[in-house]
Amino acid sequence: MSKHAPKSSSEFEYIKWIRSELPPASPNLEVGPGDDCAIMRTQVDRQALKIDTTIEGKHFVLAEKGKKLPAVLGPAATPEEVGRKAITRCLSDMAAMGATPSAALVSCTLHTGAPVNLREEVFLGIAKTCATYGVTLAGGDTQGWDGPLSISVAMTGTMEGVRPALRAGAAPGDVIAITGSLGGSILGKHLRFEPRIAEGRFLAERGVSAMIDISDGLSGDLTRICEESGLRFAVGADIAAEAVPVSKSARRLAKLEGEGAERALHHALHDGEDFELLFIVKPNRWKKIVTEWPFDVPIRALGMMRQLKKGEPLVRILRKGEPEALEVMSWVHQL
Amino acid sequence: MSKHAPKSSSEFEYIKWIRSELPPASPNLEVGPGDDCAIMRTQVDRQALKIDTTIEGKHFVLAEKGKKLPAVLGPAATPEEVGRKAITRCLSDMAAMGATPSAALVSCTLHTGAPVNLREEVFLGIAKTCATYGVTLAGGDTQGWDGPLSISVAMTGTMEGVRPALRAGAAPGDVIAITGSLGGSILGKHLRFEPRIAEGRFLAERGVSAMIDISDGLSGDLTRICEESGLRFAVGADIAAEAVPVSKSARRLAKLEGEGAERALHHALHDGEDFELLFIVKPNRWKKIVTEWPFDVPIRALGMMRQLKKGEPLVRILRKGEPEALEVMSWVHQL
Repeated sequence: MSKHAPKSSSEFEYIKWIRSELPPASPNLEVGPGDDCAIMRTQVDRQALKIDTTIEGKHFVLAEKGKKLPAVLGPAATPEEVGRKAITRCLSDMAAMGATPSAALVSCTLHTGAPVNLREEVFLGIAKTCATYGVTLAGGDTQGWDGPLSISVAMTGTMEGVRPALRAGAAPGDVIAITGSLGGSILGKHLRFEPRIAEGRFLAERGVSAMIDISDGLSGDLTRICEESGLRFAVGADIAAEAVPVSKSARRLAKLEGEGAERALHHALHDGEDFELLFIVKPNRWKKIVTEWPFDVPIRALGMMRQLKKGEPLVRILRKGEPEALEVMSWVHQL
Repeated sequence: MSKHAPKSSSEFEYIKWIRSELPPASPNLEVGPGDDCAIMRTQVDRQALKIDTTIEGKHFVLAEKGKKLPAVLGPAATPEEVGRKAITRCLSDMAAMGATPSAALVSCTLHTGAPVNLREEVFLGIAKTCATYGVTLAGGDTQGWDGPLSISVAMTGTMEGVRPALRAGAAPGDVIAITGSLGGSILGKHLRFEPRIAEGRFLAERGVSAMIDISDGLSGDLTRICEESGLRFAVGADIAAEAVPVSKSARRLAKLEGEGAERALHHALHDGEDFELLFIVKPNRWKKIVTEWPFDVPIRALGMMRQLKKGEPLVRILRKGEPEALEVMSWVHQL
């Protein structure tokens, strides 16, 4: 089969090509793409399951020849980056549970009559990303329709004896910490971020109280942890403004907007799609994690969970030690 | 939580409502909707995995007040039927492998600003259907966008020691058989069909050579079996025109078109979305299956697989014993 997708508009031809270009599969894959279902061998274990849809105009703007986006909207996505992001968004959720991803199913819906190189490059982005992260592309579905490009990815992962790190579980006195730096992902990181799979597993193995990946933004995702954990303890979070790891992109974005450090901090607090891991951990475990941390990406403590008193805001930011409410200004999904 | 979905356009409010209205879950579901991933306990087994996307304008036309479709296009779908179909399409694929469905993940993308009763009823259609078929709704994702309604469903199933029934495996001399009757599903069955889960399992347990569910149409799906099986034996299929179970809907549709029995047979041969099981089985096993068949839906032999000679058509239809090529006039997916 040729390296390029067939020009024919037949789904069958396209699927034949896909089957010839599949990334390496796990020996546990008994039946791969092309039958009614995929069949995988499973172990006695807990399995992580995830679905997420990556859609044009919301998660990416497709690059068009001769068209440039305003600088503050960052670069448009190549079709390969679209495929990559569809997979890595699910990988990041696996990471946030401490799961090891095993298989992906992909349902791709393209505008009818979309150019052949679009579906070819989207698929290659998906296939390469699966290969990079050792994920078996177990099956999928491709269709044409009268709408924008939309890619649903379902993923399975294994826990291999590790207790999943939930959003609930944060208790007063726990340390609030984060991997990497935050803000300004729109300038490119949202298309090329590294899902923190090994880091998430390392943290889950060391018994973090709670964990989430930063998809909506620090203020919103930390609020989510307080709310979910609040079913057991009434907890709030205090973070120190000086401790927030403001990324270079956040600074660059603030500069593009003609603003300074305060605006860069705003981006670090509220921008989404950094896909770093926000985790909550008992102080003694935090010390052990810092000592043993073997990864390139840095980790940093932002603050501490506290008992929530009536009328207090869930999340507060301390500026020179003075607490003020941190509003959720991160991404709020609209239906 | 109220029985009705919140009027607010916030995703979080909607998710809270969804969590309050979830169908009964398997005790194997350790973490359900609301965290980064769902967590299920798994057994040592083969697992069936499937993803499929059900989209507006292709798999259904949404009912609108005061608007009636031409009679030959059948009834428009209620939102609940849309939710039902999104789940049952995956269930039918599970059935065609002989798998027992266990968990579903649903990603629902609605037009931004879609009325609240639409997302409420779509969800209830999903939830009720999961409850009916004992499927755990393990997680999902809901978004708004500037496009039509689209629902991706990923599903896991267990094989529980049964060998999966593939599309490949048909050999010369095998009997070609089918459950139920065919044609005219557009008049309503495509929205309310019964996925043949117990039947599929029964057949897989009895070692059918190959199996597929009729989603594209008999001529196309039988061709698919010949092609997939052809990697091992060069096989073709002969079916007898008199043996094809023409449904009442096929006859009714032909009548609406001002035509007769020949047109009704055409619908039975080429219409899609009947979601009956087409299976290929050794003659001695077929006899046993007929004797032991415990289900309400009838089964029927259509013909026989044959060794494919060079230049012969893959699928032939015998009219009064005379073979002629059966063209694939069923649904051909366009990209």
